[in-house]
Amino acid sequence: MEKISARWERQRASSGILRFVDINLRGIAQVMFQNNPLSGALFLAAVGWGSYAAGVPQVAIAGLLAVVVSTLTAQWLRADETSLSSGLYGYNAFLVGLGLATFLAPGALLWGYVALGAAVSVVVMLGIAGAVKPWGSALTFPFVITTWLLLLATYGFSGLIGTALPSAGVVTAFQPYETSPLNIVDLVAGVLQSISQVFLKGNGVAALLVLAGLLVNSRAAAAFALAGATLAVATAHLLGAESELVTGGLLGFSPVLTAVALGTVFYQPGLRVAAYTALATVVTVIAQAALNVALTPLAIPALTAPFVLVSWIFLLPRQCLEPASTVNVDVVRPAA
Amino acid sequence: MEKISARWERQRASSGILRFVDINLRGIAQVMFQNNPLSGALFLAAVGWGSYAAGVPQVAIAGLLAVVVSTLTAQWLRADETSLSSGLYGYNAFLVGLGLATFLAPGALLWGYVALGAAVSVVVMLGIAGAVKPWGSALTFPFVITTWLLLLATYGFSGLIGTALPSAGVVTAFQPYETSPLNIVDLVAGVLQSISQVFLKGNGVAALLVLAGLLVNSRAAAAFALAGATLAVATAHLLGAESELVTGGLLGFSPVLTAVALGTVFYQPGLRVAAYTALATVVTVIAQAALNVALTPLAIPALTAPFVLVSWIFLLPRQCLEPASTVNVDVVRPAA
Amino acid sequence: MEKISARWERQRASSGILRFVDINLRGIAQVMFQNNPLSGALFLAAVGWGSYAAGVPQVAIAGLLAVVVSTLTAQWLRADETSLSSGLYGYNAFLVGLGLATFLAPGALLWGYVALGAAVSVVVMLGIAGAVKPWGSALTFPFVITTWLLLLATYGFSGLIGTALPSAGVVTAFQPYETSPLNIVDLVAGVLQSISQVFLKGNGVAALLVLAGLLVNSRAAAAFALAGATLAVATAHLLGAESELVTGGLLGFSPVLTAVALGTVFYQPGLRVAAYTALATVVTVIAQAALNVALTPLAIPALTAPFVLVSWIFLLPRQCLEPASTVNVDVVRPAA
Repeated sequence: MEKISARWERQRASSGILRFVDINLRGIAQVMFQNNPLSGALFLAAVGWGSYAAGVPQVAIAGLLAVVVSTLTAQWLRADETSLSSGLYGYNAFLVGLGLATFLAPGALLWGYVALGAAVSVVVMLGIAGAVKPWGSALTFPFVITTWLLLLATYGFSGLIGTALPSAGVVTAFQPYETSPLNIVDLVAGVLQSISQVFLKGNGVAALLVLAGLLVNSRAAAAFALAGATLAVATAHLLGAESELVTGGLLGFSPVLTAVALGTVFYQPGLRVAAYTALATVVTVIAQAALNVALTPLAIPALTAPFVLVSWIFLLPRQCLEPASTVNVDVVRPAA
Repeated sequence: MEKISARWERQRASSGILRFVDINLRGIAQVMFQNNPLSGALFLAAVGWGSYAAGVPQVAIAGLLAVVVSTLTAQWLRADETSLSSGLYGYNAFLVGLGLATFLAPGALLWGYVALGAAVSVVVMLGIAGAVKPWGSALTFPFVITTWLLLLATYGFSGLIGTALPSAGVVTAFQPYETSPLNIVDLVAGVLQSISQVFLKGNGVAALLVLAGLLVNSRAAAAFALAGATLAVATAHLLGAESELVTGGLLGFSPVLTAVALGTVFYQPGLRVAAYTALATVVTVIAQAALNVALTPLAIPALTAPFVLVSWIFLLPRQCLEPASTVNVDVVRPAA
Repeated sequence: MEKISARWERQRASSGILRFVDINLRGIAQVMFQNNPLSGALFLAAVGWGSYAAGVPQVAIAGLLAVVVSTLTAQWLRADETSLSSGLYGYNAFLVGLGLATFLAPGALLWGYVALGAAVSVVVMLGIAGAVKPWGSALTFPFVITTWLLLLATYGFSGLIGTALPSAGVVTAFQPYETSPLNIVDLVAGVLQSISQVFLKGNGVAALLVLAGLLVNSRAAAAFALAGATLAVATAHLLGAESELVTGGLLGFSPVLTAVALGTVFYQPGLRVAAYTALATVVTVIAQAALNVALTPLAIPALTAPFVLVSWIFLLPRQCLEPASTVNVDVVRPAA
């Protein structure tokens, strides 16, 4: 692995195209805080496989288009070099592309919408990263706010049609039902899909590719992703969430991100930090359920807003825990 | 009073248990900005009596559990000593406990939910208090955001059932009706229940106990609480709010907190500050009505969000008024 | 023009009344970032004509009352002199007055509501201008938040009745329909009304008066207002927005403000800034559609919130573009 990595470094230095590819792969890798082009390639493979298997290849293409547009936008806006070459202006755009192509019907306007969203996500990233720098990172807030605006607006435009958006309604009491005990098959399905849903895909093979992408760069990240997903599935089941949500990973992808972020990126790993991360992970499950409910009247998905909200809350009191070493804390967002 | 206080100080110094009790009582007292264990004991008596009278003793018990959990959490997170021993990590948790037990059905999961909410409120407090320190205080924002998330999530979980949550709907035009003139009985009921509703109880005896708790520590606080409640009831009646809301104190508890906070805690008392506080109190009545409406589709109560919103707005331009003496402005929140 | 201006300066210095009139006219002018009493007089004429033509003269009167109350409030709160005499405490109040009188039925309580809202807008302005000073300006946020609270609250009060508020509902899918090609008459109507709707009026003559008010102070502002309106109308039409919204200027007034703010006030005009401004203008159209949808369940209008949101997002990364010269950046908000 080390040798491949060193060779890539040498070739990258000698080629503008390779450098551009490198930035975009790192952009994809930064969705899960990994500053490593190989992680990005494996995550991209996960998205590609998941999109192909679900019969929506345009989703992976939209993600690719978006990350490329974001890199060009960041260069045009003269964003700082270190963050740019670490992929920190790309991960939000990649998610914007996946999100728009997942929830909207294909068409010419969709591609324009994806490119526009990708460019805007860079502007938001530049602004928010600066604003929250004293205590944290922008996380996926630029993705969330950009995608929310673009999805909400489709209800006012005939040119863009939602095909997979939730339907609107007022909040209603939960209909109690017979909960079945969580068997091992459901647990494994829930854990794996919680991981793949970080990239908006419910697919076991994609989950394994994502885990591989974590493993090549950080064993701790892979371990916290798995542990976070397991804790999330168990919590959601214990509280009596709908079975399909639990096993489909739809209450678990935000907690997975919380677990990786707090447990391996922003704080020095250790027992106290692990307990703190576990608390935050449980709270993220509750926040995911809460935001799903809160957005019911607006008919848009919560995306990773619960992860952003809870992680910001748990990052603000940084002085109470051991922050990660300064080496990790780069200009915009620490890379693991 | 002075003698009792001095004796308590001496005994507290010599006993770990007494010190722990002292912190928790001060935590309860800080709901209304009083750094005094006797105020806390009287507020607790108010809550105990109100819960008993309404046939929901679990509400008081949940409040107690929550404040104890919050103190332990703050110690585990090594929160700063001065704030901790002033009760500043306890008041939000106390309210979280009261809120969850008021709106949700009793059960094993409820107690876990209360403990979790109490712990989270400390994390939020640590973060928000630091973030707003340059111009203000966290007020009850940690209580509001934590309780909102936990209540919203119950609509997605079969394990926790709302019993007293508002029902959802879209916003509708106000149905005009014959308003009766505000007689003196209604006025007194409205004023007293505005005060007791700070602790989520509509109960005259509880209100008198709360006033007693203020009086033992700060006559100004008691006076501003009474004046704020009267102004709130008069404003709500003048604008034509529903009679039951007015006399039940449901439009008055946030204004009471605004009046005490701006009139006696954060600004140097005086004529200009009193006029400024009166303006803020009237605006809080309007904000309470506005947030009640805004939360209709989400089927959750506004809690003290109107107090937090309006007080933050009126605290931001601090340079325009005389701030309270620095002695009052301690690390996290000034104690009167 | 120069001569009139110089003469006005001399007379203003010698008369307290003229000075007061000057402040209030500049307050009206600052709605579109112009620090010029003549601009204010022309904007006032636009509002007066628009109100008269629509048979709602009380709207213009409410605007005037509000701006006067705001000036008195700012003086009472000892706001800083430079900002005060540039009209920076007046423009939000002027819009609050127009907004309340446009959406609510006339009556004694309305006038009290207008005066209250005007005073509150000054408090919000003082607080927000300070909070966002490191990277931006309060823009019309004080108008938006104050008017939202006051309008929402009317659904809970029988004393104030909404006559022109949108009706509530849950979000529904857009009903596709045959879009007609945008002919030149519709385009001109859309562009002009996008400009006059900045002052809540759909009226061609009012639009020309507004443009005149811009021209007397800044040709760049007039050009960016026209260009922004044209781009907004074209974008909204391309995306398939409802024809009446497009030609009525209801998707264009926020983008007009974004174009003037980013293109002529906060950044040094130039090609890169023009492209950046065009991107922000297009995003503001989308944000306007998105907020219209998001506020459907609450039955209140989006006002200029899309302008504030998008401009803040595009102002945060200031280091990436050339900021306007420091001369322009005064204490609270740069005046063109």
